Amino acid sequence: MSSQRPSLPKGTRDFGPEQMSRRMYILDIIRSVFQRYGYQPLETPSMENLSVLTGKYGDEGDQLLFKILNSGDFLKRLTADGLKHGARHVLPLISEKGLRYDLTVPFARYAATHRHELTLPFKRYQIQPVWRADRPQKGRYREFLQCDADVIGSDSPLNEAEILAMINDVFSDLGIDGIRIKLNHRGILKELASLAGQPEKENAFCVAIDKRDKIGDEKVYEELLGEGFTSDHLDRVFPILDMPGTNLDKLTALKKQFAAGSAGVDGIDNIESILALADSLNATALVDVDFALARGLSYYTGAIMEVIVSDGSMGSLSGGGRYDNLTGVFGVDDTPGVGFSLGIDRIYDVMTARNLFDQVRLQTTRALIVTFDDASFKFGVNVLGALRAGGVASELYPTPGKMKKQMTYANRKEIPYVVIIGEDEQSAEMVTVKEMQSGNQQTLPIKEAIGIING
Amino acid sequence: MSSQRPSLPKGTRDFGPEQMSRRMYILDIIRSVFQRYGYQPLETPSMENLSVLTGKYGDEGDQLLFKILNSGDFLKRLTADGLKHGARHVLPLISEKGLRYDLTVPFARYAATHRHELTLPFKRYQIQPVWRADRPQKGRYREFLQCDADVIGSDSPLNEAEILAMINDVFSDLGIDGIRIKLNHRGILKELASLAGQPEKENAFCVAIDKRDKIGDEKVYEELLGEGFTSDHLDRVFPILDMPGTNLDKLTALKKQFAAGSAGVDGIDNIESILALADSLNATALVDVDFALARGLSYYTGAIMEVIVSDGSMGSLSGGGRYDNLTGVFGVDDTPGVGFSLGIDRIYDVMTARNLFDQVRLQTTRALIVTFDDASFKFGVNVLGALRAGGVASELYPTPGKMKKQMTYANRKEIPYVVIIGEDEQSAEMVTVKEMQSGNQQTLPIKEAIGIING
Repeated sequence: MSSQRPSLPKGTRDFGPEQMSRRMYILDIIRSVFQRYGYQPLETPSMENLSVLTGKYGDEGDQLLFKILNSGDFLKRLTADGLKHGARHVLPLISEKGLRYDLTVPFARYAATHRHELTLPFKRYQIQPVWRADRPQKGRYREFLQCDADVIGSDSPLNEAEILAMINDVFSDLGIDGIRIKLNHRGILKELASLAGQPEKENAFCVAIDKRDKIGDEKVYEELLGEGFTSDHLDRVFPILDMPGTNLDKLTALKKQFAAGSAGVDGIDNIESILALADSLNATALVDVDFALARGLSYYTGAIMEVIVSDGSMGSLSGGGRYDNLTGVFGVDDTPGVGFSLGIDRIYDVMTARNLFDQVRLQTTRALIVTFDDASFKFGVNVLGALRAGGVASELYPTPGKMKKQMTYANRKEIPYVVIIGEDEQSAEMVTVKEMQSGNQQTLPIKEAIGIING
Repeated sequence: MSSQRPSLPKGTRDFGPEQMSRRMYILDIIRSVFQRYGYQPLETPSMENLSVLTGKYGDEGDQLLFKILNSGDFLKRLTADGLKHGARHVLPLISEKGLRYDLTVPFARYAATHRHELTLPFKRYQIQPVWRADRPQKGRYREFLQCDADVIGSDSPLNEAEILAMINDVFSDLGIDGIRIKLNHRGILKELASLAGQPEKENAFCVAIDKRDKIGDEKVYEELLGEGFTSDHLDRVFPILDMPGTNLDKLTALKKQFAAGSAGVDGIDNIESILALADSLNATALVDVDFALARGLSYYTGAIMEVIVSDGSMGSLSGGGRYDNLTGVFGVDDTPGVGFSLGIDRIYDVMTARNLFDQVRLQTTRALIVTFDDASFKFGVNVLGALRAGGVASELYPTPGKMKKQMTYANRKEIPYVVIIGEDEQSAEMVTVKEMQSGNQQTLPIKEAIGIING
């Protein structure tokens, strides 16, 4: 084995104790919210067959899948002649599996496979990493954790209302204020495309208005003109996108512009039902009905939502929506559902920027036992057993000796208490407990020391 | 998108809500033991550069690494001529990354990279999946979770004693009795190879005796004869492997057969120190000094240990040992350490076989609200908010209607309480709580209902 300078693959990260403590804090809160709403845990393998993954994320998505080389003699089906046909031809000859790109397709695969055993509505949450061969850049990683909750087998608007409530709870429990939840409906977007004179160009319309934040109204307008939309139509639609007023005002006003019985009116009715239910769950204060919210993923068919920081300092922290048929692509029909996904990296960044981790305890030892010679070390081992039996996460510095070295260890590991075993203490069966931050110390029986350390 | 029957890659698994609840139960216990002993969490990326992984696990290990195809045009460096040279030549042209094979090499890579920031001794735990392209078979998977704890930067025998104590705590907290911890030392094995007349054939000696459980003494004896060991030497050594007596008896007896100052005597002294410390931590009851324990991994240099079920019904549940220099392979010297790894799949299987999951609560909703019409549904939404505010994981069946359907849902999801919103209840601002198992029900104010459901 030759020695080498080790490096990490581009776009991947190590998480040391401090980052892990913070990430676990966030995840515990997310998990407990999911659980409080009756969502149950699910995990799927990191690898899926490429036949399951390919074609689900568009051409670009297929490019971004990480593919796994077949094990064994991976060249056995590849000939020099085959090589000439290029990567697209060669790929299926040398690779059958890929890494999970999101949690939705694996969930769909799971639901299709287990459809006869699932109790519907089936509410699952899933917290696992996903992998994308994206160009790494600030805040974008090739391996990152997704936290998804979906419910399938129910088209009740209660599900959407509960998602709004869960988003509320997660951000409130994390202490992140100043977020807004944008809410819109595919039916409304469809109708707006009609109002814009091009009902058959709904996708182009959505793609364009989705870029308003990035490139501004003017450029979006130009892009739509290029797509064949006309000024007089667009001039009717653009003011709608920024319509002022309360959520209910906006919905009422827009409904008047839509034809009775249209998809747009259905969408508005649905949003009104969702808001009424969310209101009973105290979950509407952060919601902004936003007719310009389009979201990229074309598989949404009903309500769509997205969470942003209201100062606009960051992209979306969460997003989701309703789909008609999760498992259709696997030949199983009739699984309508709705779900959302939380991005832990951006949540982490917001919390860091706002110093919200100051209160989060580093996952570390509560007490370090400090000893000076073999005799105190021996006594220290017994104290160690007593502390742990008393529920104290504790350590004995593994070799007796100089106090300074041991105190430095406690300091650097942010251990709040040091338990000192001096000669006097041993003879009296006592310990000296020093609180590192205040420097206060007192000598007392072990049992009382446990009480102090456990706080 | 064409419809298709989805399948899972060989050797991989989905974990539904029941399995997840059980796995999370096991992991919570393991994590809390690691924390109680001052180990801090670490996570590393799923992918590592192949330069980091290759050559660390022997030739067979290199074969078992899952390799990731380069993204973009993965063929750009491969020519028809290159193809002729076979897989070994082609691999580095089309793949730079692989999936993590264990948690030790990534930890070594982390420690080498961060050596200047780490506070030594550095105690880390890591709970993440690893991937091996092994032939799938019963109980052996291609993706499985490892739970490792290692401490580097200390050669104190306290660390080994604490590992024995942690193993004790984990299995005791899980309620798994009847396990044994085998303990041996590489120095003892080295000396036994000398006693067997072939000091330079220590590896062959270890490989052979490691198979005693599988193929029996006779075949091991034959294999050693084939390796050049002689009968008269082996006849001296074999009885040692099964020496009767207490741990201390055995160590004392063996020490007499070793030359003073030999590696064997050092090993025995070390094991004696470990046992004395473990005894102070009440962690020796399950320990069997076993001179035949060899363990496969050749990088261990000191104490080695392995956990088995004493009825021999299963392979090892855990194993570990001391190594001289974790990061040597990355050009950083002087990081002695000791660690161990817990295999959650076998622990799961033992617990299943012993019905130890009977007490583990399925992670599910505590209360389902059942409603019959729009009015009771509307009242139900308010009750739902009140229950959750009271800390109850609860659900409202998303559409009002027939009781039977809703009760079936509660039954299948193992929800212990049903909260019924009938007409009388609404007018009196009360709810009827039914305990599913006993069938007992009572009508009472929401606040009292919360008390009952929270138990």
